[in-house]
Amino acid sequence: MEEKKVLAYPIVAVNDADTKHFFDNRYGTGQSTIDGILRSTNILIAGSRFVVLGYGWCGRGVASRARGMGAEVLVVEVDPLRALEAAMDGFRVVPVAEAAREGDVFVTLTGNLKVIRAEHFEAMKDGAIVANAGHFNVELDLEGLAARAASKRTVRASVEEYVLPGGKRIYVLGEGRLVNLAAAEGHPAGVMDMSFADQALSSAWIAREGRRLEKKVYRVPHEIDREVAALKLATMGIRIDRLTDEQARYLASWEMGT
Amino acid sequence: MEEKKVLAYPIVAVNDADTKHFFDNRYGTGQSTIDGILRSTNILIAGSRFVVLGYGWCGRGVASRARGMGAEVLVVEVDPLRALEAAMDGFRVVPVAEAAREGDVFVTLTGNLKVIRAEHFEAMKDGAIVANAGHFNVELDLEGLAARAASKRTVRASVEEYVLPGGKRIYVLGEGRLVNLAAAEGHPAGVMDMSFADQALSSAWIAREGRRLEKKVYRVPHEIDREVAALKLATMGIRIDRLTDEQARYLASWEMGT
Amino acid sequence: MEEKKVLAYPIVAVNDADTKHFFDNRYGTGQSTIDGILRSTNILIAGSRFVVLGYGWCGRGVASRARGMGAEVLVVEVDPLRALEAAMDGFRVVPVAEAAREGDVFVTLTGNLKVIRAEHFEAMKDGAIVANAGHFNVELDLEGLAARAASKRTVRASVEEYVLPGGKRIYVLGEGRLVNLAAAEGHPAGVMDMSFADQALSSAWIAREGRRLEKKVYRVPHEIDREVAALKLATMGIRIDRLTDEQARYLASWEMGT
Amino acid sequence: MEEKKVLAYPIVAVNDADTKHFFDNRYGTGQSTIDGILRSTNILIAGSRFVVLGYGWCGRGVASRARGMGAEVLVVEVDPLRALEAAMDGFRVVPVAEAAREGDVFVTLTGNLKVIRAEHFEAMKDGAIVANAGHFNVELDLEGLAARAASKRTVRASVEEYVLPGGKRIYVLGEGRLVNLAAAEGHPAGVMDMSFADQALSSAWIAREGRRLEKKVYRVPHEIDREVAALKLATMGIRIDRLTDEQARYLASWEMGT
Repeated sequence: MEEKKVLAYPIVAVNDADTKHFFDNRYGTGQSTIDGILRSTNILIAGSRFVVLGYGWCGRGVASRARGMGAEVLVVEVDPLRALEAAMDGFRVVPVAEAAREGDVFVTLTGNLKVIRAEHFEAMKDGAIVANAGHFNVELDLEGLAARAASKRTVRASVEEYVLPGGKRIYVLGEGRLVNLAAAEGHPAGVMDMSFADQALSSAWIAREGRRLEKKVYRVPHEIDREVAALKLATMGIRIDRLTDEQARYLASWEMGT
Repeated sequence: MEEKKVLAYPIVAVNDADTKHFFDNRYGTGQSTIDGILRSTNILIAGSRFVVLGYGWCGRGVASRARGMGAEVLVVEVDPLRALEAAMDGFRVVPVAEAAREGDVFVTLTGNLKVIRAEHFEAMKDGAIVANAGHFNVELDLEGLAARAASKRTVRASVEEYVLPGGKRIYVLGEGRLVNLAAAEGHPAGVMDMSFADQALSSAWIAREGRRLEKKVYRVPHEIDREVAALKLATMGIRIDRLTDEQARYLASWEMGT
Repeated sequence: MEEKKVLAYPIVAVNDADTKHFFDNRYGTGQSTIDGILRSTNILIAGSRFVVLGYGWCGRGVASRARGMGAEVLVVEVDPLRALEAAMDGFRVVPVAEAAREGDVFVTLTGNLKVIRAEHFEAMKDGAIVANAGHFNVELDLEGLAARAASKRTVRASVEEYVLPGGKRIYVLGEGRLVNLAAAEGHPAGVMDMSFADQALSSAWIAREGRRLEKKVYRVPHEIDREVAALKLATMGIRIDRLTDEQARYLASWEMGT
Repeated sequence: MEEKKVLAYPIVAVNDADTKHFFDNRYGTGQSTIDGILRSTNILIAGSRFVVLGYGWCGRGVASRARGMGAEVLVVEVDPLRALEAAMDGFRVVPVAEAAREGDVFVTLTGNLKVIRAEHFEAMKDGAIVANAGHFNVELDLEGLAARAASKRTVRASVEEYVLPGGKRIYVLGEGRLVNLAAAEGHPAGVMDMSFADQALSSAWIAREGRRLEKKVYRVPHEIDREVAALKLATMGIRIDRLTDEQARYLASWEMGT
């Protein structure tokens, strides 16, 4: 909208604040996705083959937590940089068609649509569990699945069983909506506090500076990010150091460099 | 009872089967304890100081999962071997008095009583969360806590808030009973299946062999353990190798050794 | 230099390429720092208290690998965002003065100077090991240490022992130069290949496009980063997916969004 | 030999002491095997497919460290219990024939012979690296490999390149001898100290008690294990708790139990 010059007022992209996306997306979604899967299914994650589709901030949060619970984690990506990062982080990186045959649990976090499609559902093992923690309810092609299913019923709160012709059963959590909201309680307070602080302090900043701003999208000012992080550390009882004067001068100068 | 010769019939110690204590206690308790804490409190585990009291099979399961969820894990032990193992596994090992001052979350899994006592509750930070996943409800000295508390109320299902004189709040989960049973669903089916298989096959073994057995405590026969493990692998779709004849002969002989 | 308009020609900041700093700095420095410490000292990392000073790309690489080898890892930072990230990653975050008293091994990776100073050396335990993997040889104040030391001798290749008055011994690796170069072989070929590819393809890009470029600092074009990552995945035998046409259209449009 | 009654004097099985096999085998071999591979090859472990053959104490040490360095770890086992444990620990468990096709690095730690045989070498990828950290030099069938190889040469200290007909290259480390001894410095002092303490204290015990002992194999007395562990904790600066009198009584009684 900024590029098309249709913004009616200045915007602060709070979701891009470091204290938002680094924390809310990674640590919040990482934990609450696991939580949503546990509450809805009570499966044992240790020993399962757990497929994470999308290795952005949310995806790496979930991959890290699934490994931390004892799963063998497979990652599906379309971006070569992220795929390489996943491989270097020790995850097994495979195309979605291969993952579909092997996985016990699937979670999509891509921000895109139809990431798991009818042909993938058909390739899955009997009993596969499928959830979305990314984007609305478009990441799973549930229409395609429903069109092929012989029957569908609710077997447990937030768990729908689709039976394919031949008898294979696929379990979809939370109707493909964000599983951490549908089946758990969303992000913990300990991560939302930072997001809300970003919103509050950014609103105050716009109220203060708004008349000088243009009708475009602004990043959250770095000082706000630092302030939120420093407040959070204080509530956690964590103390850190400050640069000495000599170090601050050194960082500021390039003449002393290299 | 065996030593005192008061056993009335032969016993099989199913809890000591490898497929029971290695799996049920470690992977089952590890996951379901985290699950119970999440369901009852919805706290963010990442960044928390998480104290595990007792580093037996259950304790190392919980320590491993808490780390896997992003906590800094502290371990309390009385046994020097287990304490050393915890340290070598990268955990910070401290006495309970030090842990009490630093921890955000505490879980006891010792099989003993009064592991967290009144003086430890008094040393805790405001807002500390305390749970037991070990032994009945005797690991936490809740009588001692109640005796010192100015007030007590339920703030959320399975969460009781004790307010100490001065205003410090301590949150006790599930009344000190096993938190994975009190606040979650106990072990997942994927781990109980092995425990039940051990019980079933051991019962069959006693029915078959019982007349030849003495009135003492027997280990689960190793063949049953192997059979349960092999069946479990098959249900997980995991194939393994067999020894070649040459390897089997080698293992059986000591003359070719060293 | 760009800001002061003293650049004589266009520059490509190859070190900022994703395939450089994400990989070379994190995975390369992470491993080779551990390698340098092992080759020079042969200490057991499991069970040690390992202090990482600086939680940038290099620092988190080393912290991750030290934990992976079984250490209890402490992180020292001056930036609240990075400090918070370290805490959420499960590391214990402390001021340098506290770390100095507790650590067994110290590695600096800050890009700054005098990160470990004379008062910190004096607070260390007898036998502490100190290395730098960040910036030249200025991160450790070795002049300050030498001024206080009663004696200094080489006890093993790349290991110098400073004895403080009172008899406490401090071991400095590689004279405070980058320990992965001083005591190991630097980054593995498997990570340098990407850095060199970035340099080669960026040089070709400048040769091709240079006449159209201004005298300023350019980022490595994203297409080069993607190409290097894709080539690397191919050499690793890893295949990934492509966006479907529908997905590519979806990503490109905001009208279909939210 | 005990069973055949050919022992000439009492033996203490020091290798079975908890402070020996839990630590020396797991933490010692875990680290020094990685060390040997790094010194001999300088490969990047992150992103590699690292195959561990044998999931005993040594094998799980190496698997844990390889994962900690960023590898995707595959485990090969013949024992269903150990295979299941590896799977529950999040490792991918496969037959050796499948591992042979996929692995970048292979380490045997089975205590058996001919674990990797000619047909496995032939199935490997060009450039595969193979080492043994288990048992003498019999775990790898190097005779079988040599018989099939078109040529063989030393390409780096401790690294021999076998070229198979067709041009595929296999790199064998340390001639199949224990790679941590052949290419690194063996276990660190920080783990050998416990093994030596076990030997010294067991020798003292035999000297003291020997006349009362029979000609059989004895376990290291538990008190020695505890003493070694307690001494080690003290040298690491780690303090632990003691049982209260009430706890000690509780542990000792079964009447208060269940």
